[in-house]
Amino acid sequence: MNTPPSNHELVITRDVDVPAEKLFQGWTQPELIKQWFCPKPWGVSRAELDVRPGGSCLVVMRSPEGQEFPNPGVYLEVVPNRRLVFTDAFTKAWEPSAQPFMTGIVEFEDLGGGRTRYTARARHWTAADREKHEAMGFHAGWNKALDQLLEMVGEH
Amino acid sequence: MNTPPSNHELVITRDVDVPAEKLFQGWTQPELIKQWFCPKPWGVSRAELDVRPGGSCLVVMRSPEGQEFPNPGVYLEVVPNRRLVFTDAFTKAWEPSAQPFMTGIVEFEDLGGGRTRYTARARHWTAADREKHEAMGFHAGWNKALDQLLEMVGEH
Repeated sequence: MNTPPSNHELVITRDVDVPAEKLFQGWTQPELIKQWFCPKPWGVSRAELDVRPGGSCLVVMRSPEGQEFPNPGVYLEVVPNRRLVFTDAFTKAWEPSAQPFMTGIVEFEDLGGGRTRYTARARHWTAADREKHEAMGFHAGWNKALDQLLEMVGEH
Repeated sequence: MNTPPSNHELVITRDVDVPAEKLFQGWTQPELIKQWFCPKPWGVSRAELDVRPGGSCLVVMRSPEGQEFPNPGVYLEVVPNRRLVFTDAFTKAWEPSAQPFMTGIVEFEDLGGGRTRYTARARHWTAADREKHEAMGFHAGWNKALDQLLEMVGEH
């Protein structure tokens, strides 16, 4: 009997009226990710995205009061317009971070006719971190961010 | 002033009379890695190496008493005959492991004339894990394994 892996996952998935390429661009172009990645009134003050396996991604989140929170990570897998995997277990290739928290897996499945099944997963090393992330508002936050992404690219 | 990253590293480096390709083969071919990877009287009872970024590596170590210790991991970076990076933070792409311990970085620098500078690094997420690894005999163990690798490929 196969036991499912205990990957401590949180996930959102939605079918959206936007082509996969547009969503992938939103995730991978710094000037675009700054517009949608943080649920307002939070924002992104800086984004540096070296989109290739082993490349660094740095997103600095800014609170409404102006406090900045840098989120450094590394891309693990990049399949253009299909799939993006990144983790905060490394701050760059291959420097261990102070506190590995999650690995993000974002998938864009072409449904035809300009529609896409969008699935975003956050996997954690511990059950406690998964619970913490959920309590921080994972589902509302990631859905709100997706709303902002769709608004930016003009879902029709 | 740049502070060096606190990557909690342990490292061995040696110049050896073996071409880089031979060392890389020893690291990446299952039938070869079984012969040298564990300092005797320990051994490797099983090795499955999917040598590509995101590929799984499973090495099962066997104690002299016959107890088996599986070590699953994932390759993060593969540059043939040059560089190999792997971590036990994932058991496969991209399943978080129960307890991330280290990332291994092995480099083969061609010195010309069939000589190679061999550098093997183990980076840890915590100072405690680095200390534990050192106390487990990192330096003696990794040097002994390298001796066995050199013996296998017939250093001259």
